[in-house]
Amino acid sequence: MPNYYLFKPDFLSGFTADVFKSFGVPEQDARQASKVLAKSDIRGIDSHGIARLKSYVEMFSIGRLNPTPEITVVRDRKSVATVDGDSGLGLVVGPKANEIAMDKASQHGSGWVSVCNTNHYGIASYYSLQALERDMIGWSMTNTSSIVSPLWGAKSMLGTNPISIAFPGYNNPPIVIDLATSVVALGKVEIARRQGKPIPEGWLVNEQGQDTTNPSDMFKGSLLPLGSTREMGGHKGYCLSSMVDILCGVLSGANWGPFVPQFAMYETPPEHSVGKGIGHFFGAMEIDGFDEVEAFKKRIDQWIEEFRKTPPINGQEAVLIPGDPEHKAEKDRTRNGIPVIQAVIDDLNFVSATTRVPFDWENACLEVISGEL
Amino acid sequence: MPNYYLFKPDFLSGFTADVFKSFGVPEQDARQASKVLAKSDIRGIDSHGIARLKSYVEMFSIGRLNPTPEITVVRDRKSVATVDGDSGLGLVVGPKANEIAMDKASQHGSGWVSVCNTNHYGIASYYSLQALERDMIGWSMTNTSSIVSPLWGAKSMLGTNPISIAFPGYNNPPIVIDLATSVVALGKVEIARRQGKPIPEGWLVNEQGQDTTNPSDMFKGSLLPLGSTREMGGHKGYCLSSMVDILCGVLSGANWGPFVPQFAMYETPPEHSVGKGIGHFFGAMEIDGFDEVEAFKKRIDQWIEEFRKTPPINGQEAVLIPGDPEHKAEKDRTRNGIPVIQAVIDDLNFVSATTRVPFDWENACLEVISGEL
Repeated sequence: MPNYYLFKPDFLSGFTADVFKSFGVPEQDARQASKVLAKSDIRGIDSHGIARLKSYVEMFSIGRLNPTPEITVVRDRKSVATVDGDSGLGLVVGPKANEIAMDKASQHGSGWVSVCNTNHYGIASYYSLQALERDMIGWSMTNTSSIVSPLWGAKSMLGTNPISIAFPGYNNPPIVIDLATSVVALGKVEIARRQGKPIPEGWLVNEQGQDTTNPSDMFKGSLLPLGSTREMGGHKGYCLSSMVDILCGVLSGANWGPFVPQFAMYETPPEHSVGKGIGHFFGAMEIDGFDEVEAFKKRIDQWIEEFRKTPPINGQEAVLIPGDPEHKAEKDRTRNGIPVIQAVIDDLNFVSATTRVPFDWENACLEVISGEL
Repeated sequence: MPNYYLFKPDFLSGFTADVFKSFGVPEQDARQASKVLAKSDIRGIDSHGIARLKSYVEMFSIGRLNPTPEITVVRDRKSVATVDGDSGLGLVVGPKANEIAMDKASQHGSGWVSVCNTNHYGIASYYSLQALERDMIGWSMTNTSSIVSPLWGAKSMLGTNPISIAFPGYNNPPIVIDLATSVVALGKVEIARRQGKPIPEGWLVNEQGQDTTNPSDMFKGSLLPLGSTREMGGHKGYCLSSMVDILCGVLSGANWGPFVPQFAMYETPPEHSVGKGIGHFFGAMEIDGFDEVEAFKKRIDQWIEEFRKTPPINGQEAVLIPGDPEHKAEKDRTRNGIPVIQAVIDDLNFVSATTRVPFDWENACLEVISGEL
């Protein structure tokens, strides 16, 4: 039986910030970047938090990331703009570009920013949540390296390209939508592979584009887009993923489709480049431009309460509101700590050894828990 | 073997406009409304064109539609606004509200309009296509009466709530995304029912929320959202449908969720009202605010050409670009005419009899074709 370990969020984010600083990232940017990763862990999205620190470190090590980027607005027309991230950490470029979108919304009612020359930005909902603090509706998207095949195609052409949008409630927590446009996260295939279990039909195709239940086909195959097959709407997932790719990559002048640079070192790099870095897209709309803020928030509450009353299917859980699982995790983890598995501890020890940033995890550990996370 | 009939687009849209005029719709509005329905037929989306004229007529007959609406901007803040459609035809309110969004984009870089007190607006892509004529990226969404259950729920709470977005090409036709957020259109279940064939698992649940392959369960059951089950991403389709419902309904002060008024007379009306009419959401972003228009369009061409090169799965068609089927239909139908099945001819004869607008279809018919459409 494996163990996992609980830590205070501050311990993990302090270490994260110190690691970024060791590569020359300025104090404020390092704190910002660690805040984005911490939010992912706090909200229960373990795949996108401190578990990715090693990948960011590898990217710094090979010079793919600029620790001191000059983030610039390269084109601007009132409520819209294109931003160049100067090869910075997505965890630094993303928050800055999102702030530009929100500032535009304050001034022009809405703000929309397409970003090139950036890198992986963490969880999409970090950004849409920021907008809520300013009484705005927040939008966030990013393209990612290709691992998803378009319907009827036998090659990975698109990333998992997530879409997030958030709406504030009045007494209720916000509605937070954050979804990858692939049928499933690659992490779920990886878990099945480690456990030696078959995966459901409709998740993965092999190198020839044939449906497979063997998770090991993930290395040369492709995930399917949301909907999987033509019959079940696979063309819709392909369309949504394309939309994200175009708004983030094609619009900003970043790479798109199969040319988006890989994040992890074990992924195959694209044949060549058609733009700069990866791309994001941020939007913010001032609620006050549509209606009184309070009136809107109260209608959101009404929506939430009505949907909670949906009669559940026998034997199923009650209908959830988008963002419920993350909100529950946030409440639990803020109180009890962030769980980290042994494999991630090992990665962080490796990061500590290469960067010489101390990682005294045994002293910081709040509790050791026996079992699967 | 049934027949279908080919007609010039002008014959059908002339009749449509005359029918609307017979209810007191002003000339210009009647032409606009008929243009939206004609676009649907020309683009091969038979379900949303003249086949729906009878439903619009029924709505006029019971006084649900205002033939001479005063469409007003009820709140406005530079790039965003809320519009009240005054119970007008969605086919008139939609184009007007979309124009407000595009005018805002000309002035502020982007424009975003949430609309209440409106009715069914035809195909979502009519509106996103309009934006292309002004070198803008166009967005369009609408909520519709509830027929889709949220994941794990045993009640229809959401409509098929479509999302459309369109991007212009340079030498290539535009990329036009237009998808319902349900797993499948209700029309496909209806076709199976008429043919006495079972439907695939994952499309429909019965009144108790249990998966069914019996298409007759459509009357008391619900369609599933895109993704169908938890394992295949049904929560994602539910999230996307919720997003559309909130942007169109909750934001504007229209009805939302199970309270959206029904379109066809055979649907069960909602228990009560929580807002005004149904809701739409339109967006337009000026491409020139992000990059040179020509440079962007050429990158779209590059994207299209790269995706066309995707190696196809053995035995499958080549990978399509979003909008390909509609573009093909548009080329074919502009040249050869619009096909109309006997059941729709019967409906139009009924419309002609009740409105006293002549419908001389036998003389106007270009060709009778034997077979299924």
